[in-house]
Amino acid sequence: MELFGTAGIRGSATERVTPELALAVGRAVAAAVHDRESGIDGGGESDRGDSDDAENTDAATEPAPEVVIARDGRVTGPALAAAMEAGLASGGVAVERAGQLPTPALAYASRGRYGVMLTASHNPPADNGIKLFRDGSEFDRDAERAVETRVEAGTSPAAWNEWTAPERVDTLPGYLAAVCEYAGEFGADLDGLRVAVDCGNGMSAPATPTVLRELGADVVTLNGNVDGHFPGRGSKPTPETLADLRAFVADADDDGDDAGFAFGIGHDGDADRIVIVDADGEVVHEDTVLAMLAERYTRESDAADPVVVTTPNASGRIDERVRAAGGRVERVRLGALHEGIAAVREAATETAVDTRVVFAAEPWKHIHVGFGEWIDGVASAAVIARLVADGGLDGLREPITERPYRKVSVDCPDDAKADAMARLGTALPDAFPDADVDTDHGVRLEFSDASWVLVRPSGTEPYVRVYAESDAVDELIAEAKTVVETAVGSVADATDVD
Amino acid sequence: MELFGTAGIRGSATERVTPELALAVGRAVAAAVHDRESGIDGGGESDRGDSDDAENTDAATEPAPEVVIARDGRVTGPALAAAMEAGLASGGVAVERAGQLPTPALAYASRGRYGVMLTASHNPPADNGIKLFRDGSEFDRDAERAVETRVEAGTSPAAWNEWTAPERVDTLPGYLAAVCEYAGEFGADLDGLRVAVDCGNGMSAPATPTVLRELGADVVTLNGNVDGHFPGRGSKPTPETLADLRAFVADADDDGDDAGFAFGIGHDGDADRIVIVDADGEVVHEDTVLAMLAERYTRESDAADPVVVTTPNASGRIDERVRAAGGRVERVRLGALHEGIAAVREAATETAVDTRVVFAAEPWKHIHVGFGEWIDGVASAAVIARLVADGGLDGLREPITERPYRKVSVDCPDDAKADAMARLGTALPDAFPDADVDTDHGVRLEFSDASWVLVRPSGTEPYVRVYAESDAVDELIAEAKTVVETAVGSVADATDVD
Amino acid sequence: MELFGTAGIRGSATERVTPELALAVGRAVAAAVHDRESGIDGGGESDRGDSDDAENTDAATEPAPEVVIARDGRVTGPALAAAMEAGLASGGVAVERAGQLPTPALAYASRGRYGVMLTASHNPPADNGIKLFRDGSEFDRDAERAVETRVEAGTSPAAWNEWTAPERVDTLPGYLAAVCEYAGEFGADLDGLRVAVDCGNGMSAPATPTVLRELGADVVTLNGNVDGHFPGRGSKPTPETLADLRAFVADADDDGDDAGFAFGIGHDGDADRIVIVDADGEVVHEDTVLAMLAERYTRESDAADPVVVTTPNASGRIDERVRAAGGRVERVRLGALHEGIAAVREAATETAVDTRVVFAAEPWKHIHVGFGEWIDGVASAAVIARLVADGGLDGLREPITERPYRKVSVDCPDDAKADAMARLGTALPDAFPDADVDTDHGVRLEFSDASWVLVRPSGTEPYVRVYAESDAVDELIAEAKTVVETAVGSVADATDVD
Amino acid sequence: MELFGTAGIRGSATERVTPELALAVGRAVAAAVHDRESGIDGGGESDRGDSDDAENTDAATEPAPEVVIARDGRVTGPALAAAMEAGLASGGVAVERAGQLPTPALAYASRGRYGVMLTASHNPPADNGIKLFRDGSEFDRDAERAVETRVEAGTSPAAWNEWTAPERVDTLPGYLAAVCEYAGEFGADLDGLRVAVDCGNGMSAPATPTVLRELGADVVTLNGNVDGHFPGRGSKPTPETLADLRAFVADADDDGDDAGFAFGIGHDGDADRIVIVDADGEVVHEDTVLAMLAERYTRESDAADPVVVTTPNASGRIDERVRAAGGRVERVRLGALHEGIAAVREAATETAVDTRVVFAAEPWKHIHVGFGEWIDGVASAAVIARLVADGGLDGLREPITERPYRKVSVDCPDDAKADAMARLGTALPDAFPDADVDTDHGVRLEFSDASWVLVRPSGTEPYVRVYAESDAVDELIAEAKTVVETAVGSVADATDVD
Repeated sequence: MELFGTAGIRGSATERVTPELALAVGRAVAAAVHDRESGIDGGGESDRGDSDDAENTDAATEPAPEVVIARDGRVTGPALAAAMEAGLASGGVAVERAGQLPTPALAYASRGRYGVMLTASHNPPADNGIKLFRDGSEFDRDAERAVETRVEAGTSPAAWNEWTAPERVDTLPGYLAAVCEYAGEFGADLDGLRVAVDCGNGMSAPATPTVLRELGADVVTLNGNVDGHFPGRGSKPTPETLADLRAFVADADDDGDDAGFAFGIGHDGDADRIVIVDADGEVVHEDTVLAMLAERYTRESDAADPVVVTTPNASGRIDERVRAAGGRVERVRLGALHEGIAAVREAATETAVDTRVVFAAEPWKHIHVGFGEWIDGVASAAVIARLVADGGLDGLREPITERPYRKVSVDCPDDAKADAMARLGTALPDAFPDADVDTDHGVRLEFSDASWVLVRPSGTEPYVRVYAESDAVDELIAEAKTVVETAVGSVADATDVD
Repeated sequence: MELFGTAGIRGSATERVTPELALAVGRAVAAAVHDRESGIDGGGESDRGDSDDAENTDAATEPAPEVVIARDGRVTGPALAAAMEAGLASGGVAVERAGQLPTPALAYASRGRYGVMLTASHNPPADNGIKLFRDGSEFDRDAERAVETRVEAGTSPAAWNEWTAPERVDTLPGYLAAVCEYAGEFGADLDGLRVAVDCGNGMSAPATPTVLRELGADVVTLNGNVDGHFPGRGSKPTPETLADLRAFVADADDDGDDAGFAFGIGHDGDADRIVIVDADGEVVHEDTVLAMLAERYTRESDAADPVVVTTPNASGRIDERVRAAGGRVERVRLGALHEGIAAVREAATETAVDTRVVFAAEPWKHIHVGFGEWIDGVASAAVIARLVADGGLDGLREPITERPYRKVSVDCPDDAKADAMARLGTALPDAFPDADVDTDHGVRLEFSDASWVLVRPSGTEPYVRVYAESDAVDELIAEAKTVVETAVGSVADATDVD
Repeated sequence: MELFGTAGIRGSATERVTPELALAVGRAVAAAVHDRESGIDGGGESDRGDSDDAENTDAATEPAPEVVIARDGRVTGPALAAAMEAGLASGGVAVERAGQLPTPALAYASRGRYGVMLTASHNPPADNGIKLFRDGSEFDRDAERAVETRVEAGTSPAAWNEWTAPERVDTLPGYLAAVCEYAGEFGADLDGLRVAVDCGNGMSAPATPTVLRELGADVVTLNGNVDGHFPGRGSKPTPETLADLRAFVADADDDGDDAGFAFGIGHDGDADRIVIVDADGEVVHEDTVLAMLAERYTRESDAADPVVVTTPNASGRIDERVRAAGGRVERVRLGALHEGIAAVREAATETAVDTRVVFAAEPWKHIHVGFGEWIDGVASAAVIARLVADGGLDGLREPITERPYRKVSVDCPDDAKADAMARLGTALPDAFPDADVDTDHGVRLEFSDASWVLVRPSGTEPYVRVYAESDAVDELIAEAKTVVETAVGSVADATDVD
Repeated sequence: MELFGTAGIRGSATERVTPELALAVGRAVAAAVHDRESGIDGGGESDRGDSDDAENTDAATEPAPEVVIARDGRVTGPALAAAMEAGLASGGVAVERAGQLPTPALAYASRGRYGVMLTASHNPPADNGIKLFRDGSEFDRDAERAVETRVEAGTSPAAWNEWTAPERVDTLPGYLAAVCEYAGEFGADLDGLRVAVDCGNGMSAPATPTVLRELGADVVTLNGNVDGHFPGRGSKPTPETLADLRAFVADADDDGDDAGFAFGIGHDGDADRIVIVDADGEVVHEDTVLAMLAERYTRESDAADPVVVTTPNASGRIDERVRAAGGRVERVRLGALHEGIAAVREAATETAVDTRVVFAAEPWKHIHVGFGEWIDGVASAAVIARLVADGGLDGLREPITERPYRKVSVDCPDDAKADAMARLGTALPDAFPDADVDTDHGVRLEFSDASWVLVRPSGTEPYVRVYAESDAVDELIAEAKTVVETAVGSVADATDVD
């Protein structure tokens, strides 16, 4: 069973992420946590399943490992949280109920313990999901697999006298204070900076506006009441769903009076994502936002070798700005920023250079490594606001070259993907002989004018994706698409023959 | 000491409405409640202070009277609530902590018991205040005086074994459901009606948007995150503080697409007040809103003699619409709607007619008598939305004639007010011989073209106020002002001579 | 599946009454409650399963039915309560968390709604269980069957937007006050009556001592700290497990000083059962306790035809005292007191007589009908204390004749029970021709000297039970046992032949 | 105003320790805490009152200092806690509500922050009190004086936007686990050791029995239900109030069966004090308990110079056992153990010797320095139980010589005390020329046979106290008393002359 996707477990609360599943996952997590804490399966190793009796005896006198549970504002959250609690408590781990939180606040609360976040992020209101954290980071694949295996096999309750009684905790104030303190290291005092925040009725509502107000901003919110029906707009922040915010910001600016906003912010349902809207109501390209932050973090780092980790679909403008600031960029497949960070660090142990990851991000999702190793849209809001207060949004964008960007999909059956990609590994370099080629995550071609093409198979749908960014993007993507179609066609034909 | 003003106790939380005062008031309320419950001072009678021992003994075995405490979102609320709780619990009444609530929700929760609301309504964030309720209604003057007397004298704690331990209650869901059920009796299904609600970071945030969404509206909120700093706008909803809402609604409409709003709603900090904004972003005159509701409630009543209670400063357009619907209007001084309701009912007991109060309101503050006897801006939002869904806002306004309205103040020392008003009781009728005269609350002149003038002394400042509504309002008010100045002048001169 | 036994669902928390089962039962209860509330299956009728669409639509706008959840002090309680909560909330009923409560307090809280009690009563600490209540009464067999059927079939979650968010409630104080008020109607003021209460670390701890102290007793507790490990003694109060209490009470009395106790009280884990210990440390026979209460309730009733309902294994001394007080006794099978009460009431509707059930009880379990229709050991403690304060325990026992009582078991395979009992229906009357015979619940023989024999099959074990009470109990039971063995033997032989 | 006595603030909740006082103290503590945290008055220094603006500005961005509030089970606790909370929160410190706790558990929770305990310890139920903690230790005299001064002067609320919102915390489980872990270092596994604990309806109920059960004991409790009326016995554990416990333990032992108890434990209302009862139901002398612990802690220490701190009224048997174990005893005046600990440490800084305080205690009150610097009766229970499990209670007592002990009081007006003591400084040595004399805290005479006499003025009553311990205690105390009376008489005469 493939329980975990790229964003944890996610789906319909009545059909997939049901209380029954939450209970089973809770029990499985409890077992996995116990095994890890008693040293049975260490960092990333697979579960060997055999436990040493002597160790178990020692473990019995140890305090139970702690797991903190939070949920976003979805209607199905309380029942799922109760089921998760039942699974964990009957699995013998200590449970702390944190109630409603943004995902990054739960991640923060999971430092030094474990965390479970019940959220479907930007999915529709009928969905829900489960994200697992250890010490501030999402579970890696091995840890997820350890849970998956136990869910499949079924996990029995702990002995009755090891069951625990959940306690309530209130962790939001500490998180908000920590964000304020962290952001205070960058940019300038907000000093009345006027910002509009569209919380989309999600969990940013009790977080981002409070943080910005504490930092000195003059904040107006849209959809700042938490409501699991997401009545104000879709929970995913897109140019379309942010139409109200964009009009609100743009029109305020049109009036020419003091009511103009410096910029606008849109979050998703659990506040890990952020979208920035400029004073004209236009969405700032997500890669441009990445480039701003990447440049600043690189520039402020005192490491000899500052590194920014990002994903193959992220624009070359990031590389440009990071290089300009004296750093370098490493790419890792989508949804695997943590692995990228770990790889950079691993590699650095073999050198004498002071290599440090200063920022890790995919579009809309930012890991502020100096603050913590989770995706944090609230911290992004705070840091960006302070940077804007310092140099203005236009000033931040000015050095960034935004080339046209496009994405197309080529039909490709799942079972033909591997062969097609293998073929493209040579076909694309052949078709674009001037390009530098990188085949670590799909095939990425970089050209001397900073144009690039990326071809990679979709992880969830029967497509091969083609991304390109170039001043002549239409021609570039058309050319690449032809190569891809040819490769897929010949493979698919071959497949059909079988 | 004049503890209670027209809106309960209100002022700076650090200088006037301090925890010390809250503790003292809590103790005094406890004593007053005990006396009332044991029959020592019945409805409105003053405290006679002598208690029958036998009765006291009986009272000891009775369960303690219950007081539910809530607060709005102000920063000073939790400490004041704790102090109030300490005063009540050490005074021997059972205390229920309801946490943050809109004032009308606390009033609803006070049915069958007592209630204390900590709110300064639309005052600035540094203020706070105390409102007392019994069985859904605010304390009347006698009840307030009973508390005032005890605060002045100091009230000892109850015997140690009568102190109580506060409990938490969650009363909001029941209130919201009740509002939905009540509003469902009027107008039409909202069916996607698009409404913008500016909660002003106040306590309407968890109430009005939820109610409207439950009723089927498509709701977008401004400043829907509760924040006791009121960062989004001033807590008092005025055309100026509602500028963002007005622009937001108007601009959405300008686009001509589906995103237009049917109307907008602005609340004050504790959701007793409501302001309506039309699709053009213009504030609908508060008297026009009263007239809409008054007409509808009158029309839907099956009483033989439906009565609307309002205040002298409310426009004649209310009278017009109520008369058109087959009812009549009674006026009572500002801040005394409850006394007006009581007076109408008292008078009705002496007749055989089926007289019924169907609505009572002053500008921005509506008592939906069929729902409960408290000012309720959330219920107003729900009922108005259903009326708009039925006939459109323009349709509701159409029959209402909005004449120009003005208000001026004439300087008048406090100690000269009584003589001045006495003199005006004859001077004004003399000056306006065509007018019908009513001297129940100040001097009110009504003309055959529905124009009117009201002259009354301010309750809190050294002025005599002159209000007028007329197609020729400037001339009318100028003429009236001259009469008032003459009267005040001659009185003041006389006063000076003394 | 036979989910419900005579005392609800009960068994090992790790193997039988697991969180998984609690979740499934919660979901099933939610569905059953919804159907009942929308009129699909009325009182006791079986589930017809077909729902009228129009009704469902109406139901959607109705507030969700309420279910209050409590648990006893067992270690496995919090996790099971969370799972139950998850099942109920995702089944679309409103959930109120009452925390730890005695079972009778949960029953009290279930008036006007539904209730779920997580308790295994007097079972060992590794067990737990589920009892369901509606409006103060345990579910009857039909209602249990409706849940059973749904658990077997599996019940889907409600639509996502019907899921609910549990709320906390604090219902214990109201219950304690109600017990005090009720008991106050009987006997005399406690006025320093010295009582020892052994709470057995169970849920009587926050109830019985408080009630007795409020009523004026001087209370000392044993094992009054709630601890789900039941460290002080077994959770079932027997002469053996109450050894500490008995010695404590007896020794205090021996000293001859003021420290003597009027009597002692022992409760089981969830305070539905009560055992009385006299000042000599001897357990008062459970039937004698029943007789005391039965007589008093009969005597104090102003009904023309007061009825006490009890079970076949209860002693004739009850009948003697009830008759002496002017009432009559009706018997119903063990565990079915509610059916007995209902049957008496049903029969009474066909007569003109003022028939009223004044008390219903089986040994150790008392339903104080004037207080509520649940088994209530706390109310028993309060009423008995007030009766003792009035006439002394010896005075209460004095009129009651305690004849020797014995119980023996005869081996009998489950599948031979029916035939054996059929045969005994004639064999026993033949063997005891002087006796009056009643075959409503097993075969009961009553003799003119108040001796009696009861023969009935065990509901849970492979035995036929023989009970007898007589001044010559050894002879009587030996004689009856012989008849039973013969009957069982011949049946078993016949069975073997097959 | 002398607000603080030797045990904090204590008195009638309706007349002295009222909610009004709690609010004032809370505000004063908040101010004192703020000043201390911002360096205005450092450890023990008096308040200089002048604050540096720049520092204050910095402080504003610092997180507010935290104060955790708990209360014992007294009826007046909830209201006083609410008032304290109101004072602290409006004084701008962060407040954590810990609910009901034993005093040592609050002390434990105060580590790294501040703590307020609302308790009157062993006083009658109508009393209550306030104890203040910083980082695990009670406020010293300077810190108390800083609060006292502010209460007298009145302390204004903090600026409105510095008020805080209290949060709930659950700190008991952590404390219980810590006690178990600590005690595990001493003695042997309890392994079914049978212990009777009389909690006296106080706050030891949720602590000591749980800890002992976790450690493996077989625990039976008396008065284990928390009840602020202290119905079971007086809240102060004395041989008289422990009569039930003593009889219970003694009688169980008499039976000769397995039900005998190894020993019994009695606590006061807030579990800082402990009394040990032996298997015969006799109270073990409080100094003997001290000697057992003192010896063990000394013996187990690896310090070169282990020191036990105690008070002048403590017996010479402590010195004997500590010396036998290789350590030494230092004495400090009653109620000042912390000062004694600090003095020993201060002195040690000037030497090269590894001096360490291993235990500090006055009769019934034990500071387990290795665990924490507060008086902790729960830790005492755990450690003593493990020592008993190791060697038996008789084994622990065996090496301790218990000489007869007596205490008498000689009338002495307060204003004559100083002169009388001065005179006794020479008169007593003159009368007992063989004794070693120590005049640090009163006049203490030690004889070569380990007899001793202590003469000191009472701190609260018009007496001079004479304590003596000797095989010939009657003669010794009579002789000393004569000397004291003579000295007091001559002084009093002199005083009268004036």
